Amino acid sequence: MDIERTIPYKIYLTEDELPKAWYNVRADMKSKIAPMRDPKTGKPVTADDLKPVFCEGLIEQEMNDTDRYIEIPREILDFYKMYRPSPLVRAYCLEEKLQTPAKIYYKFEGNNTSGSHKLNSAVAQAYYAKKQGLKGVTTETGAGQWGTALSMACSYFGLDCKVFMVKVSYEQKPFRREVMRTFGATVTPSPSETTEIGKAILKAHPGTTGSLGCAISEAVEAAVTQPGYRYVLGSVLNQVLLHQSVIGLEVKTAMEKYDITPDIIIGCAGGGSSLGGLIAPFVGEKLRGERDYRIIAVEPASCPSFTRGVFAYDYCDTGKVCPLAKMYTLGSNFIPSPNHAGGLRYHGMSPILSQLYHDGYMEAQSVEQTKVFEASELFARAEGILPAPESGHAISVAIDEALKCKETGESKTILFCLTGTGYFDLVAYEKFHNGEMNDYIPTDEDLKAGFAELPKVFE
Amino acid sequence: MDIERTIPYKIYLTEDELPKAWYNVRADMKSKIAPMRDPKTGKPVTADDLKPVFCEGLIEQEMNDTDRYIEIPREILDFYKMYRPSPLVRAYCLEEKLQTPAKIYYKFEGNNTSGSHKLNSAVAQAYYAKKQGLKGVTTETGAGQWGTALSMACSYFGLDCKVFMVKVSYEQKPFRREVMRTFGATVTPSPSETTEIGKAILKAHPGTTGSLGCAISEAVEAAVTQPGYRYVLGSVLNQVLLHQSVIGLEVKTAMEKYDITPDIIIGCAGGGSSLGGLIAPFVGEKLRGERDYRIIAVEPASCPSFTRGVFAYDYCDTGKVCPLAKMYTLGSNFIPSPNHAGGLRYHGMSPILSQLYHDGYMEAQSVEQTKVFEASELFARAEGILPAPESGHAISVAIDEALKCKETGESKTILFCLTGTGYFDLVAYEKFHNGEMNDYIPTDEDLKAGFAELPKVFE
Repeated sequence: MDIERTIPYKIYLTEDELPKAWYNVRADMKSKIAPMRDPKTGKPVTADDLKPVFCEGLIEQEMNDTDRYIEIPREILDFYKMYRPSPLVRAYCLEEKLQTPAKIYYKFEGNNTSGSHKLNSAVAQAYYAKKQGLKGVTTETGAGQWGTALSMACSYFGLDCKVFMVKVSYEQKPFRREVMRTFGATVTPSPSETTEIGKAILKAHPGTTGSLGCAISEAVEAAVTQPGYRYVLGSVLNQVLLHQSVIGLEVKTAMEKYDITPDIIIGCAGGGSSLGGLIAPFVGEKLRGERDYRIIAVEPASCPSFTRGVFAYDYCDTGKVCPLAKMYTLGSNFIPSPNHAGGLRYHGMSPILSQLYHDGYMEAQSVEQTKVFEASELFARAEGILPAPESGHAISVAIDEALKCKETGESKTILFCLTGTGYFDLVAYEKFHNGEMNDYIPTDEDLKAGFAELPKVFE
Repeated sequence: MDIERTIPYKIYLTEDELPKAWYNVRADMKSKIAPMRDPKTGKPVTADDLKPVFCEGLIEQEMNDTDRYIEIPREILDFYKMYRPSPLVRAYCLEEKLQTPAKIYYKFEGNNTSGSHKLNSAVAQAYYAKKQGLKGVTTETGAGQWGTALSMACSYFGLDCKVFMVKVSYEQKPFRREVMRTFGATVTPSPSETTEIGKAILKAHPGTTGSLGCAISEAVEAAVTQPGYRYVLGSVLNQVLLHQSVIGLEVKTAMEKYDITPDIIIGCAGGGSSLGGLIAPFVGEKLRGERDYRIIAVEPASCPSFTRGVFAYDYCDTGKVCPLAKMYTLGSNFIPSPNHAGGLRYHGMSPILSQLYHDGYMEAQSVEQTKVFEASELFARAEGILPAPESGHAISVAIDEALKCKETGESKTILFCLTGTGYFDLVAYEKFHNGEMNDYIPTDEDLKAGFAELPKVFE
């Protein structure tokens, strides 16, 4: 197939074309998302309730469901200019390899040292912490992308950064830890003896390799018990999706320059931050009835919150100290099978995306991990970029859709987000190359155990 | 210092502005480089002599010292478009951190999955192998950047790729190996039992951890003894510097768009490929007497071929099977101390750069590795990019020069090449963070041993 390559391989924007404001999709949502609730009393939380935990500027954003656009402060724009705009790439080589008439585009968010899109929100959160005059922030990290991003942002603004890293990742990914240390962060394996909740979890489950939910509880405790510290989180929250809207806004500007309209928009979904960011301006048009797009969330078959979870109030962390959120969830005790590689392992899903999914504005699919690595390897060989396993989920479904086009002869325009690079996932790639990778799909029994823990009162 | 940021943080070129031809600096050199010689007879080698080892199109380029420009084939341009142009970055944040009036620019070549500039030549070499109808290519790799780049290029053109990886790196950098496997390459630790020279070296030095010179010998043997294979090399050769000129040509176009002229051009030097590429069009102007630039090569104090080597004919490999080249060298048996981290460990230096240095067109400095890592960490925290230790050498001297400007108040324009990322060098960063990194500078005695092995006849 010798297609004429009139669209550039990579579409970049100039600094002038960078978004000056984030887009707040909630302003256009007809069904507003349910309020966060206190885990003890069940009452909706107020901004004041959140102040001991979160930074002030961020609480405002977390609560804001009316302003469609929120200006990006100049300091954040300056930081964005160091690594943004990220390229929107036309996957000519993948199209050729698949011999598909589909036009495939991907937004590549891995072209920065944190290796993923997480930096978009990390810099915003560090900025508001600095603006409030804080000494530092605490957080959790799983695979390490978020911790790395936050340590970079904190280093830039001169903030202290304390990262609780899920123990299994801390041990299996020592390199991530060293990147964080290069940027001056303190990294503690979780659960740890440094917090009360950590001690309690270690006592109840000696030898546990940790979980995100547990690391969140420790990070929150470390924030509220130290003067001058607040807790920040890299996904799930409304504020994070707001910051990540920079992804979709850049895509939209870039596509409009070349008169391109996507038919299908695909993103991987763990907590939902990259997907929420990618689709933001597009789903906005859909919500306002201006244009229709097919939007597909892709999640691991081993952590299927959209496709097999329930839409209900749930705890956001294992220690049950954070506010409850209404979301698609597998229950706060759900932990994916140990042979699940990469991220996308959180038990819940962004409340915004949960509501959009519930209201029929998007679809969801789950993919098994060997299929994800097959797609990732095929993509790497064609496009010369080693994808993170997370991104591999979106690639897998994008390839499926491109092959459907090959059958039908349609030349649909497919857009997906290549959220990150796989440099720190080579243990998983090695397993895949050696044929040692297994797929594990939780049974209905496994899921029942998670659902049994839901706070039933607020259903 | 609140400077007005009128120049963009990153200057990109459009696809139309990409170089269409490589620049061959030898066309402008008054002292031509000495011919390669046969290691046995001492006679200058002819193109025919090289045919069993090298690809035909590349031999032509290797010998060409008259054509100033050599057109880049369309297939290579297409591949370049996947990851080029690389950004030319204005290091505003580093300038601010140093509080220097100097204007610092760096060309960032690490923004591709191979993680370095090596891909620029890998794709060219793979293309000419394919054009000749070969089945595959063999090569050696040390730290793994070149092997990764070549495996990506071979995967793109459907060529078999056999990589001999220096044993110590094979064992210490399993992740590099997995990236190469992702792109379908076969990776063998060197010395190995798969070649006669490997067997001989293992017999003579049981337990050796290998060296680049030894891996080269094995790769050459594997190429000449298998039908349909040729040997390719990622540095030192004239053809490689030719391909790498794309770096400098892009810089020049980008700078001219904004009316910028560098005063000082700095690059790290191992075999010399990135430095040769960066300076190509600038040193061309210098050779033609059109403009003057200060050019500084930076090498590790533990492998100081420019600053402490001799300019003489030497063997290019330990097995003494390759043609002799006249270059700055430490002797073909020189191996840097085991605590030397990262690349830049080859005993010799590009004959082109050697001649330019000998003729006074450039300077050279050596830096100790703890200083390199200090500079790399400072750079990472300011600019948000984790540098390869190789690149850290250039960063270190760029910072020195910027600090001199701070003293004198001059606002010189400093350009350096950030050749690659440090994702695969985190063992070294960890040593640095833990205070376990040592500097080892070879004694005069150490060097004498290397010089004693020089082929004296051709001095």
